[in-house]
Amino acid sequence: MDNRKIGVFDSGLGGLTAVKEIMHLFPDESIVYFGDTGRVPYGTRSKETILKYTHDDINFLLSRDVKMIVIACGTASSAALPEIKGEFDVPIYGVVDAGAYEASRVTKNNKIGIIGTTATIKSGAYNKYISEYNPKSQTFEMACPLFVPLVENGHFNTPVTKLVVEEYLKDIRDAGVDTLILGCTHYPLLKNAIAEYMGDDVTLISPGEEVAKFLRKKITPENAHSSVRDDEQYSYYVSDSVSSFEELGGIFLETKINGKVNKIDIEEY
Amino acid sequence: MDNRKIGVFDSGLGGLTAVKEIMHLFPDESIVYFGDTGRVPYGTRSKETILKYTHDDINFLLSRDVKMIVIACGTASSAALPEIKGEFDVPIYGVVDAGAYEASRVTKNNKIGIIGTTATIKSGAYNKYISEYNPKSQTFEMACPLFVPLVENGHFNTPVTKLVVEEYLKDIRDAGVDTLILGCTHYPLLKNAIAEYMGDDVTLISPGEEVAKFLRKKITPENAHSSVRDDEQYSYYVSDSVSSFEELGGIFLETKINGKVNKIDIEEY
Repeated sequence: MDNRKIGVFDSGLGGLTAVKEIMHLFPDESIVYFGDTGRVPYGTRSKETILKYTHDDINFLLSRDVKMIVIACGTASSAALPEIKGEFDVPIYGVVDAGAYEASRVTKNNKIGIIGTTATIKSGAYNKYISEYNPKSQTFEMACPLFVPLVENGHFNTPVTKLVVEEYLKDIRDAGVDTLILGCTHYPLLKNAIAEYMGDDVTLISPGEEVAKFLRKKITPENAHSSVRDDEQYSYYVSDSVSSFEELGGIFLETKINGKVNKIDIEEY
Repeated sequence: MDNRKIGVFDSGLGGLTAVKEIMHLFPDESIVYFGDTGRVPYGTRSKETILKYTHDDINFLLSRDVKMIVIACGTASSAALPEIKGEFDVPIYGVVDAGAYEASRVTKNNKIGIIGTTATIKSGAYNKYISEYNPKSQTFEMACPLFVPLVENGHFNTPVTKLVVEEYLKDIRDAGVDTLILGCTHYPLLKNAIAEYMGDDVTLISPGEEVAKFLRKKITPENAHSSVRDDEQYSYYVSDSVSSFEELGGIFLETKINGKVNKIDIEEY
């Protein structure tokens, strides 16, 4: 038994996809979430800055006494995690490993598309994991920097979004992939527009959901939470305004989180 | 005579528009620029966070011994400057005041459009200044949150940009404004797309350029720089990677700035 919490962080809101899935698969576990809303986005920043912010985020979660950490941010998982993995005392799992594993498993023609932020694509992290899990596969990648702002401004399936989807995905579709990794936690919100363009034969992988399944191998009777717990099973921290996170986070999680969100100064960690 | 520098800051690169204009109008002055590239964008954040970041930016420039500060960021000028103006010992001028002044002066039908980030529009700062400078004028506003990412991804006049311009500017155009304030330092880079949509009869105001003209009233023989100076007439500081700022900044300024850019940890100020 290990009644410490599971720490999850993302640059913003998107990581709540992973939280929702962990709540669902591990109803006894406690979760502490941090969204770095005061410094989002990560995907356009230099590797140096992404490393610094990832350190801060992990240090904050460690201060909350967690037993493991899930990096729900595609950018931090790909550009920072491989480098810092060994520096901390608790295990750290990223969405990239989980997404690459699932894509390698489901592809039939061994042609896998990868889309993500500029930093994620630049890191080559998905390629690295995929070539380990499925050495026969070929990958086709594209950075999609306008997808995050489109999602954040409610452009889920508008004419603007359709145009941008075509611009970014044309080469990947033409390459004939049968599997596409949505390598940023915002992208599942564009699922309809992406699926329409890619066609029914292409399987879309959401690493934020996959990471929860991945934890099945990591949460064992030895380190699972006992069913006894206090009121604070779920708590949320942000680095910008609490109110907008409460509102949008509630929509993401499909449950009210008002009163459970606190603001912290991440620059102190 | 006052040989201290003029401090200029922006959340990112866009404030270099103001720098270029100040260099042009005041060739004897020295300038120190800070671009908060590690925490950009400001326009989507809460007022609280914008206030904090603006304080940090001003404190950094004060540590460089400046005689006055120009806030080249539309968001910080509108959401923070009115509140913090009295807190510092040097005069602080913002692009909002300068842009509002110019728009109030050039409008003939007294119908002025204002576009900016979500935080700028929410602040109502342009309205406040315009109603002082030209009490007869009517204003029509719209937040344009996708314009910054479009600019940052090189979508200056593409089909995607044209669609977004129409979405944001339709009501303002239909209202019959004869003057439109481009209330964010990124927006002048969309000038062609905006001008095409608004038509030849509408004057576009770029507050980043106006703020330099505005300084004509503020730089007097008493506080002007003498013509004697050291090598470091212009210096640039950023909070993320130096190399990408050198490259893009050079394009903005139409002169090489390689070797003149330094990275600082803005969280220490």
